Amino acid sequence: MNYTRRIKKIQAKLRRKKIDAFLISQPENRRYLSGYTGDDYGISESSGYLIIPARGKILLLTDFRYKAQAKQDVPWATIKIYKQGSLRLLCKLLPDLNVKNLAFESHYTLFSTAQNLKTELGKKGIQITPLEGMVEKMRRIKTEEEIDLIRTSVRLNEKVFGEIFKNLPEFETEIDISLAIESLMRRKGAEGTSFDSIVASGTNSSLPHAVPTQSPIQKNKSLTIDMGLVLSGYCSDMTRNFVPGEPDKRYLKLHRLVRKAQLAGMAAIRAGVRCCDVDRAARKIIADAGYGKRFGHSLGHGVGLAVHEPPSLSARSTKKLRVGMIVTVEPGIYIPGWGGIRLENMVVVREDGCENLNKDTTWLDI
Amino acid sequence: MNYTRRIKKIQAKLRRKKIDAFLISQPENRRYLSGYTGDDYGISESSGYLIIPARGKILLLTDFRYKAQAKQDVPWATIKIYKQGSLRLLCKLLPDLNVKNLAFESHYTLFSTAQNLKTELGKKGIQITPLEGMVEKMRRIKTEEEIDLIRTSVRLNEKVFGEIFKNLPEFETEIDISLAIESLMRRKGAEGTSFDSIVASGTNSSLPHAVPTQSPIQKNKSLTIDMGLVLSGYCSDMTRNFVPGEPDKRYLKLHRLVRKAQLAGMAAIRAGVRCCDVDRAARKIIADAGYGKRFGHSLGHGVGLAVHEPPSLSARSTKKLRVGMIVTVEPGIYIPGWGGIRLENMVVVREDGCENLNKDTTWLDI
Repeated sequence: MNYTRRIKKIQAKLRRKKIDAFLISQPENRRYLSGYTGDDYGISESSGYLIIPARGKILLLTDFRYKAQAKQDVPWATIKIYKQGSLRLLCKLLPDLNVKNLAFESHYTLFSTAQNLKTELGKKGIQITPLEGMVEKMRRIKTEEEIDLIRTSVRLNEKVFGEIFKNLPEFETEIDISLAIESLMRRKGAEGTSFDSIVASGTNSSLPHAVPTQSPIQKNKSLTIDMGLVLSGYCSDMTRNFVPGEPDKRYLKLHRLVRKAQLAGMAAIRAGVRCCDVDRAARKIIADAGYGKRFGHSLGHGVGLAVHEPPSLSARSTKKLRVGMIVTVEPGIYIPGWGGIRLENMVVVREDGCENLNKDTTWLDI
Repeated sequence: MNYTRRIKKIQAKLRRKKIDAFLISQPENRRYLSGYTGDDYGISESSGYLIIPARGKILLLTDFRYKAQAKQDVPWATIKIYKQGSLRLLCKLLPDLNVKNLAFESHYTLFSTAQNLKTELGKKGIQITPLEGMVEKMRRIKTEEEIDLIRTSVRLNEKVFGEIFKNLPEFETEIDISLAIESLMRRKGAEGTSFDSIVASGTNSSLPHAVPTQSPIQKNKSLTIDMGLVLSGYCSDMTRNFVPGEPDKRYLKLHRLVRKAQLAGMAAIRAGVRCCDVDRAARKIIADAGYGKRFGHSLGHGVGLAVHEPPSLSARSTKKLRVGMIVTVEPGIYIPGWGGIRLENMVVVREDGCENLNKDTTWLDI
């Protein structure tokens, strides 16, 4: 991955903004700019920070536990280890680097952390400047190299789904399936799941974010499987919906409606189109059939190093799609007491349309 | 769980501070005060917020996806659903509740979110006040009811470990073991793992936070298994270290040293003792034997609804232990190129000593 190119681009932006250095705390941004694979335990337990100076070599700050990993992942950066917290090390390092104005990621820095930075760095004559979304903005547009990595992630995810689907009768409960998914992903070389798999049978499937339970898989009811994995840092995300036994008329009708909405959404995607217009194209199909209120979420979201990232295919976003963006297209209908149906593919935005990254067609067109 | 008592305590504190309402964003605090089990996807994708007014009924704000879960978990709260983000709903609700001064959790609110709150609520004449750690402070001291829940979590964790240990020859790689652990946990009724299990064989065990790999389990080398689960919201956390085959002299010597340090740490624990003194009691054993630099982390941490929470048994903490706190005691020695050994139990701080929550004694005293 061309980290140098990415860093040079950020550095040029920093110089234009008269910022001396940029503290990167957001984990996917950190990985995007350096390749560092350290895992955080949430925002309060970081595995490290990057300092991108406006000119010159970047620094990676971490603690003793991640030292070996940092050196292995980012041998070309200056690695600094903090023993008594990152703030104390920053107070020591930044004056040596002649930093007078430090930018920080205001959308991934806790309010109390920012206050401490302001107070302690202020004592050293260093000013802090909130910066929001600079790296995320770059990350929205994927290079062909990144698209290939995401394609490989999607392919492996489909392979795992395929094996699960083939062996469906072996599983008794939702949890059985979700464990088998996660286990297969790891055995096939995934770094992990990109989110906790959703396996929802019958009425459980009416919750878009259902958590797998010990409930048995109901043979003649809707079964939603929403799953994704991480490979080389890049996420996949796919939902398939089917009935393990015999679907009834209602299922068939709603499934076909959701699929029609998905195809309409995909057909609306090309460079230059507003996100809200893509959402509307799919939503109209569902609304016209009288189920508008049963489709309560947005049509899709960006996917890359994070499983949820910009852009959002939401009714409220007037932003325009650009070549190289990757988004999910996932309409759904959820009926309390009955169940839900969601179908999700990932597509790349191209000049004149979209490229569907999913090859799996299980139960899409029934 | 007595949520009413907890909320009344917070409300009394708010009234003393002249705060009209407190916005709770930290997930474990949210669960502690309401029992709401919604899962967040990191700080940027919350499954909801509590509003604790200084007087009266609490509110739970969430979105469409979590509506059913919110109603099921917290039927006694007022549930409000936001469609266009939590901020817009807050702007609408707070004036109706006559809130002039809203406190927010500054240690679990993003800087940019706090800025938006300040701007938008400011327009309604509402002032915001950062509050740090009020609920965490309450959470440090566990009631006997909570201790029982944690004991049950520890017991189930040990049961899972016991089955893994018994079937050790079945597993080929670190990942095989970690998958089996997670699968057993879920099958036995755990809500999930409290952290990604660490299974580290041979030289991998020299990384305190090793990620399981496809490396085969080495028969005559150190094997570290650090695992924990969540049951009824409460976490367990335990590390056992052993050699699947025959330990050599060096392993035996270092293992006994770590165990001696652990026992010294446990012996130092009782109400009124400073955290740093407990850390020192254990560290001294390791340092006196010449391995001080090989024990790079703190002796332990609090465990409860979160797997890492206050207090910290750290060399820098002069805070005093109090009856009802639960902490881990987990010294370790890590030698690059050779391997590492860590032993971890969980104990309850009592008036005159500590109560060891772990009954498992596998390979502790060899």
